[in-house]
Amino acid sequence: MKERTLIKEAPQKIGKQIKVEGWINTIRSHGSIVFFDLRDRSGILQVICEKKVPEGLKEEDVVCIEGLVKKRPQKMENKDIETGKVELEAQKIERISQAVDLPFALKDTAGLSLPVLLDFRPLTLRSEQVKAILKVEEEVIDEFRQTLKSLDFTEFQAPAIVPTATEGGAEIFKINYYETSAFLGQSPQFYKQILVGAFERVFTVAKAYRAEPSVTTRHLSEYISLDAEMGFIEQWTDLMDTCEIIIKNIFKRIEAECSKELKLLKATVPQISKNIPRIKMREAQQTILERTKRDNTKEPDLTPEDEKEICQWAKEKHGSEVIFITHYPTKKRPFYTMPDKEDPDFTLSFDVLCRGLEITTGGQRINDYKMLVENIKKWGNKPEQFEFYLQAFKYGMPQEGGFAFGAERIVKQVLGLENLREASAFPRDMARIDGRLSNNE
Amino acid sequence: MKERTLIKEAPQKIGKQIKVEGWINTIRSHGSIVFFDLRDRSGILQVICEKKVPEGLKEEDVVCIEGLVKKRPQKMENKDIETGKVELEAQKIERISQAVDLPFALKDTAGLSLPVLLDFRPLTLRSEQVKAILKVEEEVIDEFRQTLKSLDFTEFQAPAIVPTATEGGAEIFKINYYETSAFLGQSPQFYKQILVGAFERVFTVAKAYRAEPSVTTRHLSEYISLDAEMGFIEQWTDLMDTCEIIIKNIFKRIEAECSKELKLLKATVPQISKNIPRIKMREAQQTILERTKRDNTKEPDLTPEDEKEICQWAKEKHGSEVIFITHYPTKKRPFYTMPDKEDPDFTLSFDVLCRGLEITTGGQRINDYKMLVENIKKWGNKPEQFEFYLQAFKYGMPQEGGFAFGAERIVKQVLGLENLREASAFPRDMARIDGRLSNNE
Repeated sequence: MKERTLIKEAPQKIGKQIKVEGWINTIRSHGSIVFFDLRDRSGILQVICEKKVPEGLKEEDVVCIEGLVKKRPQKMENKDIETGKVELEAQKIERISQAVDLPFALKDTAGLSLPVLLDFRPLTLRSEQVKAILKVEEEVIDEFRQTLKSLDFTEFQAPAIVPTATEGGAEIFKINYYETSAFLGQSPQFYKQILVGAFERVFTVAKAYRAEPSVTTRHLSEYISLDAEMGFIEQWTDLMDTCEIIIKNIFKRIEAECSKELKLLKATVPQISKNIPRIKMREAQQTILERTKRDNTKEPDLTPEDEKEICQWAKEKHGSEVIFITHYPTKKRPFYTMPDKEDPDFTLSFDVLCRGLEITTGGQRINDYKMLVENIKKWGNKPEQFEFYLQAFKYGMPQEGGFAFGAERIVKQVLGLENLREASAFPRDMARIDGRLSNNE
Repeated sequence: MKERTLIKEAPQKIGKQIKVEGWINTIRSHGSIVFFDLRDRSGILQVICEKKVPEGLKEEDVVCIEGLVKKRPQKMENKDIETGKVELEAQKIERISQAVDLPFALKDTAGLSLPVLLDFRPLTLRSEQVKAILKVEEEVIDEFRQTLKSLDFTEFQAPAIVPTATEGGAEIFKINYYETSAFLGQSPQFYKQILVGAFERVFTVAKAYRAEPSVTTRHLSEYISLDAEMGFIEQWTDLMDTCEIIIKNIFKRIEAECSKELKLLKATVPQISKNIPRIKMREAQQTILERTKRDNTKEPDLTPEDEKEICQWAKEKHGSEVIFITHYPTKKRPFYTMPDKEDPDFTLSFDVLCRGLEITTGGQRINDYKMLVENIKKWGNKPEQFEFYLQAFKYGMPQEGGFAFGAERIVKQVLGLENLREASAFPRDMARIDGRLSNNE
């Protein structure tokens, strides 16, 4: 049996007999001649067949083809595909798997509505647009890992089943766990902090779960959290410095590895200044007041509109589509966030906004056992419930902090997607787990 | 402020003043002189202090030390640690964080019972033994990824929340999901198969959940599943060939990157022959009968004792501590497993056993839509419940198959750990999620 040639290798095989395998991407007949584009994991190739083709051959059929690679006449070259200078003259076409009629053309899924994109996910995942999004996501995650490894961080695997609804809030999923109950972790926060005691610098690519009670374009019930934590920081801004390295490396990686995908999706990576601007939340609110006359200067957080406005400001003023907002109010942050000694109503915390949306949150943590216990009480919780976590601080913990990126959010913002769901292969929300939930028994 | 020096760099700084930070690993006094070992993420360093030390300085206190690096007299060198040729003469010791008294010495946790190891996990994770185990796990997972990337596989992120208890069995966790119920996925099986339609070759480092109703030394409720799936296989043995590459690369990687850890844990990577032996389950049972007079030749699966025995045989006969067992009975495998055309009561499936325990399971899948629908019915399920999954096959799917490794099981078998829980940073089982469940609330 002849060995399979990958489509991208075809241009190097002009004049040779090859065997290719893949899906029929598009097909059309001109009289007795059938033209089709064959798709495999490496690319797309035009195939011409003047012989008999399997009956009813159609899009998404899987075929094995033997034929001759021919150079195309120059005026017939197709610059849109990498194999555009050649075509395959098919001598033998064998159908491996037969598809039913498609509900829509797969060639361009950009025009499909989100419900259709998701109802037919096993099919739409095959489109060039959706694959491009997932390719960018793969690179984002891999670059997060590579950068942190290069900075001497240890990778660990965080558990998702947790014993208590620790970080507060009702937005947590409950599990029937043998004879008792457990929960799905809202973040690997406690575990990464615990592991600072072992490895100083740790990271994980984890799942985070939020029982978001409303449908928005920027939340998922299950999302990919890129979490890192580092001990022995000299000052809390070390955390932002590390974030900044990661962000810059991710953008560089996407530009270098995903030029085809960026072009296809008509996207450009966000512009950033040499140093990403850093401003306090209160200053941001003041700036917004001056620009828009909208007075949110007493609010404890930026509204979605504020986030867009301050990003606009950063772009105009600093040439940066990314900005750090710092010093969120103590009351609005979790109990473990370190207050600013100089102004204890505010914390040594930050968010990263990119093109109007938060993509990262982080900050210094309280590493003093007694202060942590006090804060647990102040936040209305019982220290006994945090016994496991507290051990890490009881037995000596340096000054430390960390941050978490939402992987899908980075992808959404870089690619300019309208809905976060588009950045997930299999998004989960109130109304959907694969299929629509109302259709479920 | 002087910049921090990592401990492993100290031997290059003889005669120099440095600042180091870390935990007191062990401490002892000789009259007015205090000796201690300082631990940071890079290693351990002996510190001598003839000056005043902070009151009550003890193990796991976090300190910042300034001092002079001195060469030790040759007879005082410590060959067990990388910095053994030097010591630090401390001039200034500042305590950053104070630890309470330890419940046991952290220096050697090998003698601790499993319940103690886990009750005090935030502390025991700091021991050299436990860190060594997690370091090996990190390398196993990373090598799985690297090998598959080099074979042109695409990495994806599988969801853990699933709509139905699809693969059958009662061993599934139920979640309260908004107004309805959902489940924790027992494997990313369906998602990786669906993605063969998009990328042909895919892998994921996923979490798998099993509500194991009994406590054994080889099961966890939440474990790390290293899952891969590949389309356009020429024959089903391609799957075993790919597995074999991964196994060999993982063992090589551990030998190359974890020699210190192997030594500390008194472990050696399993011996493997040039080609890992492959025998049918029925042949294995026959061999076991001949060796032990134990007649399990009619059983539909190997018992744990059988798995140990056939591994023993493979080691004696082939010099391999790893073996493929193939052709498990159709009735004992999931509905999607491809039967052997030549003997349809058995499937084109395999397990990999290593030192007496299954570490991998895999096989060719049914890629024909009608045959799959038939099998779903035959297995007593409703095809409507599998509508989402079935889409992938309705729209054309090549011959394909895959496999999954249990990451913790590889670590357990390579390191010769007694209990799978030791191979997990935060193991979950019937009786424990961090703390013991009976102690909850």
